[in-house]
Amino acid sequence: MIKTIVVKQNILSHNDELANQIRQQLDAHSILALNFMASPGGGKTSVINTLIHLLKRKKRIAVIEGDVVTIDVNILKKHKIPVILANTHGACHLDSLMVLKALNKLTLSDLDVLFIENVGNLVCPANFPLGNHSNIVIASVPEGDDKPKKYPNMFRHADIVLLNKIDVLPSETFSMHRFQSALLKINPRATLIPISCKTREGFDSVVQLLFK
Amino acid sequence: MIKTIVVKQNILSHNDELANQIRQQLDAHSILALNFMASPGGGKTSVINTLIHLLKRKKRIAVIEGDVVTIDVNILKKHKIPVILANTHGACHLDSLMVLKALNKLTLSDLDVLFIENVGNLVCPANFPLGNHSNIVIASVPEGDDKPKKYPNMFRHADIVLLNKIDVLPSETFSMHRFQSALLKINPRATLIPISCKTREGFDSVVQLLFK
Repeated sequence: MIKTIVVKQNILSHNDELANQIRQQLDAHSILALNFMASPGGGKTSVINTLIHLLKRKKRIAVIEGDVVTIDVNILKKHKIPVILANTHGACHLDSLMVLKALNKLTLSDLDVLFIENVGNLVCPANFPLGNHSNIVIASVPEGDDKPKKYPNMFRHADIVLLNKIDVLPSETFSMHRFQSALLKINPRATLIPISCKTREGFDSVVQLLFK
Repeated sequence: MIKTIVVKQNILSHNDELANQIRQQLDAHSILALNFMASPGGGKTSVINTLIHLLKRKKRIAVIEGDVVTIDVNILKKHKIPVILANTHGACHLDSLMVLKALNKLTLSDLDVLFIENVGNLVCPANFPLGNHSNIVIASVPEGDDKPKKYPNMFRHADIVLLNKIDVLPSETFSMHRFQSALLKINPRATLIPISCKTREGFDSVVQLLFK
């Protein structure tokens, strides 16, 4: 048991060292980096896709796409911006080494914003800082209002929580009050913004908060 | 790198040995054990809850509830059946040792059916067999029709795929044909049953397939 813990601590502290290196590189080039985390199907690619639509005339954007397979890369490449695949080869989260390798494929002096799409998973990605400036956790209405309660570690690490798919509200099984209360208990400093990628509701606030 | 792989193989082969022990115990008592896996919010607890409703007069049921926190235990305990929490303490999947420990808290001679609710995650749980007889992967309509494509390892391990929340169909973003084709490519031997916990549509077929 003690050996396991030591190994785990070493892996995590090595990850944190690399995360610091990433942050230094990003800051040297004044790049804002955002780490998007969510359940599978929560809407990471759709949110990033919508933000690129809204921002691409004003900001030079790149995406690091962490995935066990390569589908979302093709969706995002349509914007003709750099999209680097960080294929985790089955691993359930990105780590700093994967991000560092992906960064080496980008020309940092040509960028203002870096979106990092993590693997769809509400458990593991929270434990691996990637040198990014903000953690954006996306929850979605059909997943239910208990997600902050059930995955406290993920929501504790969030700077911003985007509640996606609000176009399906009202819903018999989702109470905005319960969701907000659960989040407030776990992480009172997180900013909650309800959004819909379908109607684009809420995206003005997201852009305002992150890029103004 | 080689060291990492050896460690991983050892962990997995140790897990498989324990899984065999579990299977022997289950078979010695003629207990059918089902491992439910899904994304967070995909509907694992709701499906198990519905199945208990439908079966509890005919079958003696227990649940092992794998979770990073303890909320769902309370929902299921209302049935007055044994519900054992296998708290993974932050780990992203159940393993055989956790299940074996939970089994020791049950009187196996009093059981016909064991439901194992895995941690909400479409990546890690697939790699850890638990000695169960069938893997039941739950996908849900709001997650999108690309899930088998995006999480091939999970869907490859499925014996039965339950497509949940079909009460929200038709949906602009979900094509049953695309979902079926994607699943067929990854795993042609899996049985697909569309269901709704809300309307109970499809549950006759589930009960028929598993318990008749």
